[in-house]
Amino acid sequence: MTNTTVLTKLVIFGVGLIGGSFALALRSAGLARHIVGIGRGQQNLQYALTHGIIDEIGVDLAAALHNADMVLLAMPVGQTAHVIAQIATHLQANTIITDAGSTKQDIIAEARHHFTMQNRHHFVPGHPIAGTEESGAQAAQINLFAGKYVILTPLPETSTDATEKVRQLWQACGAQVSIMSAAEHDQILAATSHLPHILAFTMMNHLRHSSSDLAHLLHFSGSGLRDFTRIAGSSPEMWRDICLTNREILLQQIDNYLNELNLLRETLERNDGSALEQIFSKAQYARKNWLKSNQ
Amino acid sequence: MTNTTVLTKLVIFGVGLIGGSFALALRSAGLARHIVGIGRGQQNLQYALTHGIIDEIGVDLAAALHNADMVLLAMPVGQTAHVIAQIATHLQANTIITDAGSTKQDIIAEARHHFTMQNRHHFVPGHPIAGTEESGAQAAQINLFAGKYVILTPLPETSTDATEKVRQLWQACGAQVSIMSAAEHDQILAATSHLPHILAFTMMNHLRHSSSDLAHLLHFSGSGLRDFTRIAGSSPEMWRDICLTNREILLQQIDNYLNELNLLRETLERNDGSALEQIFSKAQYARKNWLKSNQ
Repeated sequence: MTNTTVLTKLVIFGVGLIGGSFALALRSAGLARHIVGIGRGQQNLQYALTHGIIDEIGVDLAAALHNADMVLLAMPVGQTAHVIAQIATHLQANTIITDAGSTKQDIIAEARHHFTMQNRHHFVPGHPIAGTEESGAQAAQINLFAGKYVILTPLPETSTDATEKVRQLWQACGAQVSIMSAAEHDQILAATSHLPHILAFTMMNHLRHSSSDLAHLLHFSGSGLRDFTRIAGSSPEMWRDICLTNREILLQQIDNYLNELNLLRETLERNDGSALEQIFSKAQYARKNWLKSNQ
Repeated sequence: MTNTTVLTKLVIFGVGLIGGSFALALRSAGLARHIVGIGRGQQNLQYALTHGIIDEIGVDLAAALHNADMVLLAMPVGQTAHVIAQIATHLQANTIITDAGSTKQDIIAEARHHFTMQNRHHFVPGHPIAGTEESGAQAAQINLFAGKYVILTPLPETSTDATEKVRQLWQACGAQVSIMSAAEHDQILAATSHLPHILAFTMMNHLRHSSSDLAHLLHFSGSGLRDFTRIAGSSPEMWRDICLTNREILLQQIDNYLNELNLLRETLERNDGSALEQIFSKAQYARKNWLKSNQ
């Protein structure tokens, strides 16, 4: 297959920042003829319809999934189990199923439980590493995925043809696609995304408890704190779900971070300036080195 | 006094990001006729001289301080004790002394130890809350302080006239000036600046220890991690000094943060989704509310 297949019918569950941006990018690339949006929020779907993000609001699941080339699951991770159970009985044998969830082992477990082997042949779990602290169809952007990474974590039984089709569609959105195991994905994302979100949320709560006058405290903060806590503006529901679905790995990550912070605390407590400087130097080196190779 | 006094001679110890930007802003406002730079790095001073940031490299301390209207101490916090002891014997009675250190109680202790009462009348400790992770005269910017906050923490014996003069000069740089006690300053900055830096450095070290292939790990990170760790690119020497000088308050801050993080960890461990969402919601609310009032 050399040319990217044009989707005659694409069904998107959850027309938010990710689902909406995927729709906009594929339509603009001429790769999706008819897009059906399904979700909990009628107002959000109506917005998506009015603004040409989708062509139709799906009401009946069987009708929506009939003759669908592809289904994208882009609702909050916490609804995954429910939606997978719901669609399983209506999926046609050759419909490609992919998703955009921030954790991958959990959705694979659900798919193994509910999907037929034929459907699993066509199941390509994915995770676009793109997003802002905004959400909803209003936040959708045609170029959200340009230059971003998308990780696909196919099952052993996923057909290479299905994986290839999903890869090409993400590439058409401007993304770089990598393929790895779901276990590796969940480990990497726990370290680089889930933990930082937890720490940023915790920083805001720490500040709330540090002063009876939070506004006064924040009044004197600089851009450092503002950037550090930007991700604490993210959706509580989404992050509850991500934490719960990647719980085991995340608990381990928190423990390792606590150890690292305790080590620094002890160094400071014993007034060991040279060890402290070394700790900071190693961190600074890693940060500067990363920037150099990435920008 | 209604008009801002023009400085005939301004002496700056440490012509880096802060000292250099102060020099550029005052000169452009026509408020400093002759600027003497003093520091450890000859190459840095030479750069500042060549680029018109300073007019003269101070070699002899007595000569440099002779007839100085104002001295700005903008070297790393760790050199404060040394520099204050050095200049104490050469300071003239009516020279205003101010500084730009990130901690204030420590420099006041040094001043009480070394300065005469007459000099303390003219001592106005200050802290411009501006800066980037860059350093050195090359990082100096004429408008670094525009729209930023400067906190002054005068001693009980500081004359209001001296405080007023320093306030006006910072305002001429475009900054908003607030006055508070050194103790309150150190408490606020520990929470809003020192702790976030510690946590960002710790995050980079955590990532270093999370994978044998850090580059691979970071390859898949998004803008969230990049913003969260930006301040980990800051100077290790500077942050060693800040941590050591604000040690007691910072240890307390770290302990409170550890408690907050442990609380979240326990919530996640017992799979309590609704408590987790509540924790995130409170943090998100505080973050969004802050942004609203600030931007």
